[in-house]
Amino acid sequence: MTLAARPPAAALVFRTLLVHGPLPRAEIGRRTGLSPGAVTKVATPLLADGWLTELGGPAAAGARGSGRPAVPLAIRADRARFVGVKITGDELIGVLTDLTARPLATGRAELRSRDVDTAVPDLARLVSRLCADAGPERPGGGRGPAYGAVHGLGVTLAGDVDGRTGVVGYSPFLDWRRVPLARLVEAATGLPTLVENDVRALTVAEQWFGAGVGLSSFALVTVGAGIGCGLSIDGRVVSGAHGVSGEVGHLPVGGTDRVCTCGNTGCVEAVASSRAITEQAREAAGDPGLGMAGAVRLAHAGHREVRAVFARAGRAMGLALASVANLVGPERIVISGEGVSSYDLYEEQIRRTFAAHAFGAAADCDLVVRPLPFEEWARGGAAVAAQRLFAPLG
Amino acid sequence: MTLAARPPAAALVFRTLLVHGPLPRAEIGRRTGLSPGAVTKVATPLLADGWLTELGGPAAAGARGSGRPAVPLAIRADRARFVGVKITGDELIGVLTDLTARPLATGRAELRSRDVDTAVPDLARLVSRLCADAGPERPGGGRGPAYGAVHGLGVTLAGDVDGRTGVVGYSPFLDWRRVPLARLVEAATGLPTLVENDVRALTVAEQWFGAGVGLSSFALVTVGAGIGCGLSIDGRVVSGAHGVSGEVGHLPVGGTDRVCTCGNTGCVEAVASSRAITEQAREAAGDPGLGMAGAVRLAHAGHREVRAVFARAGRAMGLALASVANLVGPERIVISGEGVSSYDLYEEQIRRTFAAHAFGAAADCDLVVRPLPFEEWARGGAAVAAQRLFAPLG
Ligand SMILES: [Zn+2]
Ligand SMILES: [Zn+2]
Repeated sequence: MTLAARPPAAALVFRTLLVHGPLPRAEIGRRTGLSPGAVTKVATPLLADGWLTELGGPAAAGARGSGRPAVPLAIRADRARFVGVKITGDELIGVLTDLTARPLATGRAELRSRDVDTAVPDLARLVSRLCADAGPERPGGGRGPAYGAVHGLGVTLAGDVDGRTGVVGYSPFLDWRRVPLARLVEAATGLPTLVENDVRALTVAEQWFGAGVGLSSFALVTVGAGIGCGLSIDGRVVSGAHGVSGEVGHLPVGGTDRVCTCGNTGCVEAVASSRAITEQAREAAGDPGLGMAGAVRLAHAGHREVRAVFARAGRAMGLALASVANLVGPERIVISGEGVSSYDLYEEQIRRTFAAHAFGAAADCDLVVRPLPFEEWARGGAAVAAQRLFAPLG
Repeated sequence: MTLAARPPAAALVFRTLLVHGPLPRAEIGRRTGLSPGAVTKVATPLLADGWLTELGGPAAAGARGSGRPAVPLAIRADRARFVGVKITGDELIGVLTDLTARPLATGRAELRSRDVDTAVPDLARLVSRLCADAGPERPGGGRGPAYGAVHGLGVTLAGDVDGRTGVVGYSPFLDWRRVPLARLVEAATGLPTLVENDVRALTVAEQWFGAGVGLSSFALVTVGAGIGCGLSIDGRVVSGAHGVSGEVGHLPVGGTDRVCTCGNTGCVEAVASSRAITEQAREAAGDPGLGMAGAVRLAHAGHREVRAVFARAGRAMGLALASVANLVGPERIVISGEGVSSYDLYEEQIRRTFAAHAFGAAADCDLVVRPLPFEEWARGGAAVAAQRLFAPLG
């Protein structure tokens, strides 16, 4: 039942401090709707275990314990570390972060094979290299907890991923089906591991630290090999009752002449994914060896038919964004992914189509383009792992 | 900020008892995530004011005050009354309900004119007739509160309605623009009044009492003069950051040959609204005087071209439902509205198109057809008014 699914008070307090920075107890209460007593009840054990700290001079510190409401509380960033790894079709991108998902070390490794039995040990090696690169954990003094230990690992990848069970249902780029990835990675790394859809994880990171901070709702649309979307509504990322959400790539708004990888015609991905653009540009230029970089060069050089391929992709994207705005009404739509490197080739079509098809005040939705390197996507994995610490799934 | 936007504890407790029926305090705490102390703190004044009552025999009643956790609490349905009115293009449909939105009296009145100056007094007359029909309020005994007084009025209508300000931005069927309807109706009736989009209000009613009870998320899609959609996610109806949400009627999946009332081509409404179906059936049958009833008769008699009109509407609806499922991933989609009376003429196309275009596990989303008379829509207005009592908008 939905009411019981609300995150517990500790998660509320933690997330409030994470997004807003240090706040006095009274202000935490105001922002979370918790009573002052409930805030103190949550904060006291978190302070004792070193997850939170009280800011202020020695005077303030001297008054601790009773929880003086004017003393700001802050997250103790060095209390714990997390690792996030994004898996693409040919690479592993990793990041080691502190408790606030601030990166301490990053690294990449080639995905030598899409075989699970190779990918998992490669991933484990990358994780242990990251932990070594970041330097030693800082041991807590005296009776205190062990500061800086790695508390969890979040692995993210494109596709149908069940964050609850840790099973990859289907990943088209890796051709994985029903892979119990969390369990396999946990065995290989010894770290508590979760897996999540990469776009949803990036949406969590954007909600906490990026273009979604302070918004009542936003959508993150990613353009590249696939076209994905994360939706954040009322501060929560929508996961879908059946594990599917944000599948803008398969909205049937792209015309009827091209078949999508999913078998339907008319999907946005069938005209606007990087593969679809490359394929259409090859036909338009009559050059079967043309790649994406070549297609972009031809378009910039003014090749009319190749420019039309990008324009068509932009129109499909604009229709997809208008569909998101009309259905969900986000305050902002953030556009990211590898595809934004050639954004100038279809921005005009996106904006014009969006403006024409957004219904009424939905056109007030802010469109923001934001290039995010894969390290940011990996950071999404670490953010989800940190989130899980305080709001375990039931 | 989103965290502060959470409903206060009283609204949580109220809604939990509304949806689940009587519950012991401990169970309320479990379902809401509130501590036992917080439940008692909320319940005590609500008990004192007669909004809640303790169930059980005299022994249980004798132990009240201290809040024995095993005694079930229940909403006192007769404590307050609410009125809901739905305005269509030619009719006012009203219902008077108790605190749990159970209907006590219903009534309809012709909308003699779409002029606001006529519609508002007509609406006020309907409201006062409903109050009279329902019988006298039950005066509270002794020092107690006045039981059964009408505490609020919820007016619902199609279009761009701002529930916060009570202003109708634009109602296409009434041709109202920027009408401060809540203020006008409040002046005419003397009742605290709110206005809400009719589909969103119906979604609240379905969430509380209908096909949405107990679901983590659901969508309500209504087919008729317009095509609307309410989205309930994590127990809250999505209203859209800019006041627009659920506009499935203008998803651009309907082909390119028909122009919509919004000026675009390809909207679902351009092929599947009752007007669009009637227009296309007239052309198909070569009969400019044909109405919807005649079109349905011809289709049932096997007129191939008219049947194709319904099939095309069904295909557009199926694409719209698949878009909702792919983007938001609701547990269930409820299909309602006047259009479901001829649902047999396009059900097959809806289901087949939905199954083909729902992505992966999104196809597991349950499609349910549920005819709801306008009195149920009016009840949505009463439910929203009751909701506002405990969770006033900030
Ligand atoms: Zn597709
Ligand atoms: Zn339209």
